[in-house]
Amino acid sequence: MKFNVLKTDVDSSARTGILKTDHGEIQTPIFMPVGTHGAVKTVTPSELKSVKAQIILGNTYHLYLRPGTELINTAGGLHDFMGWDSPILTDSGGFQVFSLARLNKITDEGVEFQSHLDGSRHYLTPEKSMEIQRNLGADIIMAFDECPPSDADTNNIRNAVNRTKIWIERCKQYLNENPSVYNLEQNMFPIVQGGVSSELRKRSAEDMIPYAKCGMAIGGLAVGEEKPAMFEMIELMDELLPKEQPRYLMGVGTPSDLIQAVNRGVDMFDCVIPTRNARNGQLFTSFGKVNIRNEKYKSDFNPIDKNCMCETCQNFTRSYLRHLFNIKEVLGLRLATIHNLYYYLNLMELMRSHIQKGDFQKWSHQYLNNFNEE
Amino acid sequence: MKFNVLKTDVDSSARTGILKTDHGEIQTPIFMPVGTHGAVKTVTPSELKSVKAQIILGNTYHLYLRPGTELINTAGGLHDFMGWDSPILTDSGGFQVFSLARLNKITDEGVEFQSHLDGSRHYLTPEKSMEIQRNLGADIIMAFDECPPSDADTNNIRNAVNRTKIWIERCKQYLNENPSVYNLEQNMFPIVQGGVSSELRKRSAEDMIPYAKCGMAIGGLAVGEEKPAMFEMIELMDELLPKEQPRYLMGVGTPSDLIQAVNRGVDMFDCVIPTRNARNGQLFTSFGKVNIRNEKYKSDFNPIDKNCMCETCQNFTRSYLRHLFNIKEVLGLRLATIHNLYYYLNLMELMRSHIQKGDFQKWSHQYLNNFNEE
Repeated sequence: MKFNVLKTDVDSSARTGILKTDHGEIQTPIFMPVGTHGAVKTVTPSELKSVKAQIILGNTYHLYLRPGTELINTAGGLHDFMGWDSPILTDSGGFQVFSLARLNKITDEGVEFQSHLDGSRHYLTPEKSMEIQRNLGADIIMAFDECPPSDADTNNIRNAVNRTKIWIERCKQYLNENPSVYNLEQNMFPIVQGGVSSELRKRSAEDMIPYAKCGMAIGGLAVGEEKPAMFEMIELMDELLPKEQPRYLMGVGTPSDLIQAVNRGVDMFDCVIPTRNARNGQLFTSFGKVNIRNEKYKSDFNPIDKNCMCETCQNFTRSYLRHLFNIKEVLGLRLATIHNLYYYLNLMELMRSHIQKGDFQKWSHQYLNNFNEE
Repeated sequence: MKFNVLKTDVDSSARTGILKTDHGEIQTPIFMPVGTHGAVKTVTPSELKSVKAQIILGNTYHLYLRPGTELINTAGGLHDFMGWDSPILTDSGGFQVFSLARLNKITDEGVEFQSHLDGSRHYLTPEKSMEIQRNLGADIIMAFDECPPSDADTNNIRNAVNRTKIWIERCKQYLNENPSVYNLEQNMFPIVQGGVSSELRKRSAEDMIPYAKCGMAIGGLAVGEEKPAMFEMIELMDELLPKEQPRYLMGVGTPSDLIQAVNRGVDMFDCVIPTRNARNGQLFTSFGKVNIRNEKYKSDFNPIDKNCMCETCQNFTRSYLRHLFNIKEVLGLRLATIHNLYYYLNLMELMRSHIQKGDFQKWSHQYLNNFNEE
């Protein structure tokens, strides 16, 4: 895997780049749609291509439970199983174990948990996470880390930082001893933890940098902390993380979060906001959010956003979309998902082109002024 | 509207034809996917085109309740509202009123019913059905008839035949006095009733023929009667209905029903089987039915049907589809719907080509022998 920075903004840390993987190139900054269970909900791989997706994310925790690692291995890996031939990133499973499952015990050895589906008992360790991710066969795999909740005290965050350091060494060992089962380069991103403590973030960054070959992740943010604290941590990461490697900010965020994080040197993002909000009828547009269930769209025969070139806006009206949500027709979920993903991926393309052109600051100020987050 | 028979089979009543409408030509025999509420569930108009759909059906009862006739009229008609530019047929609303709604009173004047959604009271008459269908703007509209249940006694069926005769005259009057609101030819198909009584069917056919300009429908079948009785009635209709007009067999049926009805001179069909069964995981193939939820498909990496050229079979495996049903992912409903609709519409295309080639009998016997309905 190789990352080349193409251009860095004069007035900020925003930059464009190309990340090369065995499944093709990714132009950064990029947003990765979340394909929880081996499917980005409601849409096909060819639709993902049509909304300009270049890389998608798979959830190790969900795929491990259903359909199971063995089946995906028999299918030839996650790419073949789901019919997606471009790059994939898988997370470590840790975040879902900490946030979704019933935790039984966390020790330095690993995490014992019960499935949120049927209560069955499982044990996740750095080695197990790597083994699963080897079988899933993603191009980018994530280190197994401990992500403490937003209300964790300094002591807990310090413990998580320490444990994350112990665990990444075991991840590396496992990967060294167990090569890819698909003859594929799988590059592991270490994850910096440390909550909103500058001291712990700094220490964690120092812990992780030696393990980073081509890419690092900023974890443990967007978990409930205040936005200014989040951006302060991102700025700190921008200073500390190697400039020649891509930076992935995990689980972020709203359109304005993405712009502000790109401004602070972030290259990669994933988030369920565009897909989940779409299924709730919340659509992103160049002028702010549209709740398509609203009565006021009943006889509105305009597209969701007249400036949008997505398949939904090119073919369907707000009135029709509202009707589909009203009758609970799944076609509505899908048309909304296509629109929101297109919005996010088009926003990334806009950022890349404005960084390239050299007017990213002007453009982003204008965007942030026009876009109403509420 | 104009119908031309292109070729009639030497050994049966099967024929190919072209039905010309203001929204384009329909090659017959044809199957019409059911677009209940202004959407064929889970799929887009462009996907309908890709599975070779030429005409779709809209349900007057459902559209009248949601989103309402006035809104569709404001949108410029059902074609514009849903983004489908090819022919549409709407039913009269009668069948759903009789089968879904809570019926309060049927008189010669009309039907008083309560919505299955909220219990609200409505009154449907021949005039009201025509008014709604004028506003929906379908190319083919259906006469308002009384469709008795399969367990109705001869007296009830006779009453329905009589009422259907009275009502069609009122439909005709209304249409004559109230032209299309979209400057569009809307051709009304009369509906022959009469249950499985040859005498009543004959009488109803005689009643309806004078009202048929270009097309007649056979109603009141596939409502619970035995299959031999159904085919006997279709044969009788084949004798009695004008050969130069298309015949539409309402609500039928399975793939073998379609072949056997085409053999008896039927040109048009609609049925929820391909779409509804798809959403239950039941898929049609050249060798019979596949229940994709079955455990035996867990590690089956073949397409649903290796002979099928649909988007689903070209891109996804049984194993993946089973997984999507297992996790209740709506993408699965959609991929299954695409497959089943393609199967049905491809079957119609096969029938047309074999009638044209002159080997329809040989082909259909072979098909019926290979296809396992169970």
